[in-house]
Amino acid sequence: MNPDSLTLSEQRELIKSKEISASDLTAACYQQIERLNPTLNAFITVIPKSDEEIKPDRHLPLLGIPIAVKDLYDTKGIRTTGGSKFFADHVPTEDAFVVEKIKQAGAYIIGKTNTHEIALGVTNNNPHFGACKNPWDVTRTPGGSSGGSAVAVATGMSLAALGTDTGGSIRIPASLCGVVGLKPTYGRISLRGIMPLSWNLDHAGPITKRVEDAALMLQIMGGYDSEDPASFKTLPGDFSSHMRDTIRDRRVAFAIGNFVEEVTSPEVLEAVRKAADVLAGQGAIIEEVNMDFLHEGAIANSIMTQADGAAFHRERLQEHPDWFGADVRQRLETGAAFTSSEYSLARRTQAIVRRRCDLLFEEYDVLILPTTPITAPILEGEDAVERARLLTRLTSPFNLTGLPALSVPCGFDSEGLPIGLQIVSRAWNESGVLRIGYSYQEATDWHRKKPNIVLENAGAG
Amino acid sequence: MNPDSLTLSEQRELIKSKEISASDLTAACYQQIERLNPTLNAFITVIPKSDEEIKPDRHLPLLGIPIAVKDLYDTKGIRTTGGSKFFADHVPTEDAFVVEKIKQAGAYIIGKTNTHEIALGVTNNNPHFGACKNPWDVTRTPGGSSGGSAVAVATGMSLAALGTDTGGSIRIPASLCGVVGLKPTYGRISLRGIMPLSWNLDHAGPITKRVEDAALMLQIMGGYDSEDPASFKTLPGDFSSHMRDTIRDRRVAFAIGNFVEEVTSPEVLEAVRKAADVLAGQGAIIEEVNMDFLHEGAIANSIMTQADGAAFHRERLQEHPDWFGADVRQRLETGAAFTSSEYSLARRTQAIVRRRCDLLFEEYDVLILPTTPITAPILEGEDAVERARLLTRLTSPFNLTGLPALSVPCGFDSEGLPIGLQIVSRAWNESGVLRIGYSYQEATDWHRKKPNIVLENAGAG
Repeated sequence: MNPDSLTLSEQRELIKSKEISASDLTAACYQQIERLNPTLNAFITVIPKSDEEIKPDRHLPLLGIPIAVKDLYDTKGIRTTGGSKFFADHVPTEDAFVVEKIKQAGAYIIGKTNTHEIALGVTNNNPHFGACKNPWDVTRTPGGSSGGSAVAVATGMSLAALGTDTGGSIRIPASLCGVVGLKPTYGRISLRGIMPLSWNLDHAGPITKRVEDAALMLQIMGGYDSEDPASFKTLPGDFSSHMRDTIRDRRVAFAIGNFVEEVTSPEVLEAVRKAADVLAGQGAIIEEVNMDFLHEGAIANSIMTQADGAAFHRERLQEHPDWFGADVRQRLETGAAFTSSEYSLARRTQAIVRRRCDLLFEEYDVLILPTTPITAPILEGEDAVERARLLTRLTSPFNLTGLPALSVPCGFDSEGLPIGLQIVSRAWNESGVLRIGYSYQEATDWHRKKPNIVLENAGAG
Repeated sequence: MNPDSLTLSEQRELIKSKEISASDLTAACYQQIERLNPTLNAFITVIPKSDEEIKPDRHLPLLGIPIAVKDLYDTKGIRTTGGSKFFADHVPTEDAFVVEKIKQAGAYIIGKTNTHEIALGVTNNNPHFGACKNPWDVTRTPGGSSGGSAVAVATGMSLAALGTDTGGSIRIPASLCGVVGLKPTYGRISLRGIMPLSWNLDHAGPITKRVEDAALMLQIMGGYDSEDPASFKTLPGDFSSHMRDTIRDRRVAFAIGNFVEEVTSPEVLEAVRKAADVLAGQGAIIEEVNMDFLHEGAIANSIMTQADGAAFHRERLQEHPDWFGADVRQRLETGAAFTSSEYSLARRTQAIVRRRCDLLFEEYDVLILPTTPITAPILEGEDAVERARLLTRLTSPFNLTGLPALSVPCGFDSEGLPIGLQIVSRAWNESGVLRIGYSYQEATDWHRKKPNIVLENAGAG
C-alpha cells in the first residue's frame, strides 16, 4: 500500500469499507518518519504511537488520517516550541481551536513539525532544533516557515499537515517541496492557540498532496470563533461541491511586469506560462495584467510582520535577546525600531493594495503567478540568505491583503526541483481558487511525482 | 418663517409646493450668519450668496436646502483650510465625494465651518481662525472638532451640516450644542477629498436638528466609493422607512461601571438615566451592562489618532513645526514618538474591543451612554484644556471599533447647557440607532429649545 497515493477522502472510504485499517495507515507514516526524519528533520516532536487501537467513528471526515501539525499550534499535553528556545519546554494545557477541530473530525496527530524560529527566521536552519531539509535535494531548504509540514506531506510521513502563513509560509514550502498549500482568506480559520507572529497577517491553513485534500481540510478547519478577534463570521463555505466544475470562460489574470519578472527564474516563468496554456486549453480566458503595484504591498508586509513580531515578543527581546537566533533577533530589532509613522503608512498601503486587488477581482475570477520566483535555494553557503529573502516576494502581498491563495505543483526545473503555481482570488472565494487548482491538477501529473529519497527508501509496507 | 423649526423633508415639501421659496430659506440662513457669526465664529469662509435664482429640480431630496460644510471637506473653487496655516490659501480643484453627492441632491453650500486645527486640537480655540463659541454660553466651547458645524445648525445659520469624527468630533459638538450628530459605521461614507486625521478612525457624517434629518442626510451621503480604500461595499441602507416603528421589546444595554461613571457629572448621569426611563416607557427592555472594557479602547484610539496624524502630516511637521499651534504640535510630536510596538499593540486592542462590542450586540440592539461626561467646558482659563480632554472619553471607543453612534439632545444641566445621549449599535445598524433616537426624540422636546442668543437676535424674517 502506498499511503500517499490516494486522496484523504479515498483513504477514508477504504477505512470505512475496511479495505485498509486506520492503524496500518498510521503505521506506514511512522515507518516513513523512522526512515526519513533522521535525514530530513521534519519533526521537532514525534508523538509516540498510541497503544490504543484506532477505532474511529465511521462518519468522521478525517477518520484515522495521520496529520502533522506545525509546532506553532498548541497541542494539549504535547510540547509546543514555536521553534524557539523560549518555548523549548512549553507544554500547553489546551489544544489550539483548529487542532481540536481536526481531532474531532477523527484525525490522528502524529507529530509537531519543524519551523523557522518563531516563524520569522530567514532560512529554515533553526538554531535550536536544526535545519529541515528539502526531500528533493537535502542540501536545499524546504522553505518555510512551515517547512517541516511540507516535507512531512511530500514524503508520506503524514497525509496532510497544518501550517501557518504570514508572508508565504504555507505556500512557499508547498512550492519548494512539490505539494499543495492553501492560505485561506484572513479570518476564515481561527488563530486561537497558535503562536502569533503578526496578528494582522497570520493565517492558518493546510498543506496536502492534492487540491481536493486542501478543500476537505479547509472545510474542517474553517469557521467562526468568537474568541479569536480576527475570526470573521461568514456563511459556512462549501469548498468541494463545485471543485470539479468546468473552468470554461473563467477569467484568469496572468501577472506580468517587473515585480514578478525581474527576479523570477526563466524556468519558473516558463512553467507558469505553460500552466496558463493548460488552463486556456480547458476553456479559461487568460489575460495579462501588470501587477507591479504589489511591490508596495510586499514592503508593507515586511514592515508589519517585523513590527508586530517585535510587539508580541517585546518582553523576550528585552530579557533574553541572546536566546533568539542572530537573524531572528536582527529582524525583531528592526521591527522594534520602526516608528509609528512607518507602521501607519504600511497600514495605509495595506488598505490601498487591498482595494486595488478588489478592483482586479471585479474583472477576473483568479490571478495566477509563480508562488516563488526561484526553486529551492541551498541551505547554507554564500548566497543562502540572500536567495531565501527572495522567497516571500510573490506571496506576501496576499497576506497583506488577506486574500485566498493556493500553491499547486506546476513542474520541475532542470535540476529536478519543484515549481509552484500560485492562484489567488477575491476574499472568501477559496472555492474559485480550488476549482482552478483542481482543474489544472487533473490535466497534469506533477502531484504524482515523488522525491528520490522516498522512492529509494520505499519499503515493502 | 422659522427656517429651523421644520425637518429638512418638511421644508423640501414646502419648497416643492411653493409655500416657501428656496431663495428665502437661503436668505434666512445668511441673515443668521450676519447676525451671529461675528460673535460665534462658526464659519471660516462664508460663501457669497449666489446671484442666480435657485430653481432646484423638484425631485431632489435636498432641494435648495442650505448646508454648512466643515472646512476639512474639499470644495471646488472654495478655500479649504483644514483649520491649518498650511492650507490657509488652499483652493481645491475638486469637491470631496460627499460634497458632490449633496450638491447633486440639490443642497446649497452656504459656507465652510470652523474646526479644531487639522481636527486635532484639544480645544476649539483655533490659533489661525479664532475660537468658535458655544451659542448656549459664548464663554464656553462648542466642542469639536466639528464645532462650527454644530453651531451653524444650532443657530439656524444652516439647516444641516457636514462634520468629521475621529474621536467624537461630530457627536461631541452635537452634544454640547444641543443638536443631533451621527457618526456612521466605518466605511459607510466615503472619505475621499476630506483631509485625513487618521485613515483608520476618520468618519464623515451629518449634524442636524432632528433625527429624521440625520437619516435623510445619511441616505444621501452613504454609499461605496471605489476610490476610497476605506469605503465598504454594502447593500444600500434604508435609514428612514423603519425609523418610526415601535421600539417595544428592543433590547437596550445601559452602560455602567467606572469607565462611564467616574468622570461623568451627576447631572449628565441623571439625564441619561431619565432617557433610559423614557425608552423603557416606550416598551424597550433596559439592562445595565458594565462597559469598563472600553477604557483600553479609548487609550488605543488616542495612540492611533496621534500616530496616524503624525504620519499624514510628517513633512509639514518636519519643515514648519512652528506653523502648528502649540497643542497640535505637541500631539503630533507625541504621535511621531510612539514606537511601532505601541502602534501594533493599539491595533490589537482595536480588534479585541471590536470583538467584545460584537458580542455585546449579539445580545442587545443598542447601547446607551452619555455622549460627553460633562457639558460644555469654558473656552479659556485654568482647567480649560484639562476639561476638554475629558470630552472624547465616551465617544472615541466607537471610532476605534467603527460602530455607528448617534448623539441626540437629552436635557440641560442647571446652567442651561445641553446634554447628549449617545446611542450605539452593531456595524451597519444605523437604522436601529436612528429608530431608538427618533423614538426618544418624539417623547421629548429638547430639540425644540433654542439658545437665548438665537431668540434674542431673532428678526422678523
